[in-house]
Amino acid sequence: MIDFKTYFELLNLYSDYGMVCDSAAWEKWPDFFVEDGTYRLQPRENFEQDMPLCLLALESRAMIQDRVYGVKETLYHDPYYQRHIVGTPRLLSVEDNGNRIHAEANYTVIRTKFDGDSTILSVGFYRDHIVRTDTGLKFVSRLCVYDSEMIANSIIYPI
Amino acid sequence: MIDFKTYFELLNLYSDYGMVCDSAAWEKWPDFFVEDGTYRLQPRENFEQDMPLCLLALESRAMIQDRVYGVKETLYHDPYYQRHIVGTPRLLSVEDNGNRIHAEANYTVIRTKFDGDSTILSVGFYRDHIVRTDTGLKFVSRLCVYDSEMIANSIIYPI
Amino acid sequence: MIDFKTYFELLNLYSDYGMVCDSAAWEKWPDFFVEDGTYRLQPRENFEQDMPLCLLALESRAMIQDRVYGVKETLYHDPYYQRHIVGTPRLLSVEDNGNRIHAEANYTVIRTKFDGDSTILSVGFYRDHIVRTDTGLKFVSRLCVYDSEMIANSIIYPI
Repeated sequence: MIDFKTYFELLNLYSDYGMVCDSAAWEKWPDFFVEDGTYRLQPRENFEQDMPLCLLALESRAMIQDRVYGVKETLYHDPYYQRHIVGTPRLLSVEDNGNRIHAEANYTVIRTKFDGDSTILSVGFYRDHIVRTDTGLKFVSRLCVYDSEMIANSIIYPI
Repeated sequence: MIDFKTYFELLNLYSDYGMVCDSAAWEKWPDFFVEDGTYRLQPRENFEQDMPLCLLALESRAMIQDRVYGVKETLYHDPYYQRHIVGTPRLLSVEDNGNRIHAEANYTVIRTKFDGDSTILSVGFYRDHIVRTDTGLKFVSRLCVYDSEMIANSIIYPI
Repeated sequence: MIDFKTYFELLNLYSDYGMVCDSAAWEKWPDFFVEDGTYRLQPRENFEQDMPLCLLALESRAMIQDRVYGVKETLYHDPYYQRHIVGTPRLLSVEDNGNRIHAEANYTVIRTKFDGDSTILSVGFYRDHIVRTDTGLKFVSRLCVYDSEMIANSIIYPI
């Protein structure tokens, strides 16, 4: 069980994360992670077989910041809009008076090419390890397990 | 911060709104707004550049009621089903003891033509100004900012 | 009105249900229902005209268990992944100190064929009758009313 205040903070972490990723405010993306926080994007097939290979594995906030630099400056791509729709998070464990949370939530990210159709870019679930810090809840790790192994063009922006 | 009761009312406002729009109960749509409440549907490109042009701008509840009349009686269109999936709302500000709320939430609306496929009609976010009235929470303004600027046929029903 | 604890349990019921259906843990699906619990999948057209015909009508937990056996052992089908995205539940009534709840929620289920695109398999809403038991909240009945009457291939797994 969890109290409303903590649950509300968790909901906000999820919705703030989605809004930052969708509003192209990439430079704010690393702030969701602790310094040694990790972000991984893994196909479901590998996850279910305990195979470690990921499409993207960023092993620290510094690597996440580097990815932001890549998105903004070096990755050649056709820009697009994206939009996260995330289900209600499901608590897997709450420890240390609500200061350490394991949770997961289903997500879909919809991509819209400028002047184009809206299509499903990625669908799957997040599995997260979250801790409370002086500046609020942060990810120790965010793992995105995606069903959609056939990726239309590339995933450039954060899921 | 907000208390559970107020947050719960906010969630209900969002889910009631979606259900009314999806169940073709158009005549109930104006009831979500205060008398001088506004409803606007704006492309993301204009929103981000502070350009005022909207696809639809209804500047009072009377105009919203007139739109309902249009949908039911005068707009020639091929009927379709629609279904809202709305993310958890994100509070931008809560003032006056929870009686005045600014919030936003991601949405997707899926259209199903009778005997046809289900496709994404519109995706984007709501940015809302909400006040408490004697009959519950109401919109002072609901702005729908949509990513999907290429609109398949027409948006007839409320987003 | 409902207290946070009960609302939180309701959210968990919905998200646990989705996660079980999406992780192919079919054998856990009957546990969401009381012994005489029912599961029905009905086209919206029939629902709105009070016509009883359903695509699938399972009238007890034993029938639901039998369906699980069918999915795992006898139904010939091309496997696929599915992913539920469910909106915030909307309470229709809360009785008996929160021990009996009628609620509904919009849903979309996205199907991903192995090495294929992600597409919308089903979209609609749940209308549920839920009771508290010694082992938590359970469905007395779950009715899935789907907009998407044109079904690509077959719906094999639980919606």
